[in-house]
Amino acid sequence: MGYKKHINIIWIGKTKEGYLQAGIDKYIKLLRPFADVEIKILKENKYSGAKTKALKKDAERLIKSVKKDFILLSERGILMNSLEFAGLVSKKTNLTFVLGGPFGVDSTVYEKADMVLSLSPMTFTHEMARLILLEQLYRALTIIHGKEYHY
Amino acid sequence: MGYKKHINIIWIGKTKEGYLQAGIDKYIKLLRPFADVEIKILKENKYSGAKTKALKKDAERLIKSVKKDFILLSERGILMNSLEFAGLVSKKTNLTFVLGGPFGVDSTVYEKADMVLSLSPMTFTHEMARLILLEQLYRALTIIHGKEYHY
Repeated sequence: MGYKKHINIIWIGKTKEGYLQAGIDKYIKLLRPFADVEIKILKENKYSGAKTKALKKDAERLIKSVKKDFILLSERGILMNSLEFAGLVSKKTNLTFVLGGPFGVDSTVYEKADMVLSLSPMTFTHEMARLILLEQLYRALTIIHGKEYHY
Repeated sequence: MGYKKHINIIWIGKTKEGYLQAGIDKYIKLLRPFADVEIKILKENKYSGAKTKALKKDAERLIKSVKKDFILLSERGILMNSLEFAGLVSKKTNLTFVLGGPFGVDSTVYEKADMVLSLSPMTFTHEMARLILLEQLYRALTIIHGKEYHY
């Protein structure tokens, strides 16, 4: 394989939990030999009082900042196992993933998404979902490259 | 509710990833007002060479150390959303969860389990599964107690 994948991940708000940031940093580093990973952090709106309005504003900025096809992460999406996810990752050179904030994303983002993918039927914290997505991407790339991954 | 739940969790091997240990500690602390949480860490066998044999030995010790009904965590188990999981947690005062090591558990543990529960069809690292289970337990207890949980 003579090319490197480009993985763009867009999420809303910084990762406040230090332990999750440490895990996120770990997987970004592990992903580096296989892919150019770019994480874009959108500033989150204040949700106090007007949650729906704030979500709509976030959605507008989100949709503007995504130039290409994107996969939205949401517990309401379709379920895949790690092999199926690796199959999805293997098909494209450019991949964009979007993750919402603590209150998810506005329905307009669902409408624009090419695929809505669920990491689990269980609800995870939006910050934990970031770590889990990165770990699944690393797992997918080790599967694609036939690299052993001790878990 | 005049009683506290007792939650026993048994897993094999220490948590080697510092960032995950930090998250595990966080949720154990958060769970404390709602439940007595006891985590039993079984020493893991060396897997080099004779993996199946080591898994069988681990399974024997596991089954011996579990006195009551237990729920085995495995990606091959049934899927639940967080509300369904909260329903399961609400029904019992004593709950025991068992998580395997990096190579899962021997089939004998599946046979003895009262339920096999999956956190996701995706494969997670066995250490990450510990954090996710604790977070889901905390989420379940906040649902049961009607407590707001900012995620």
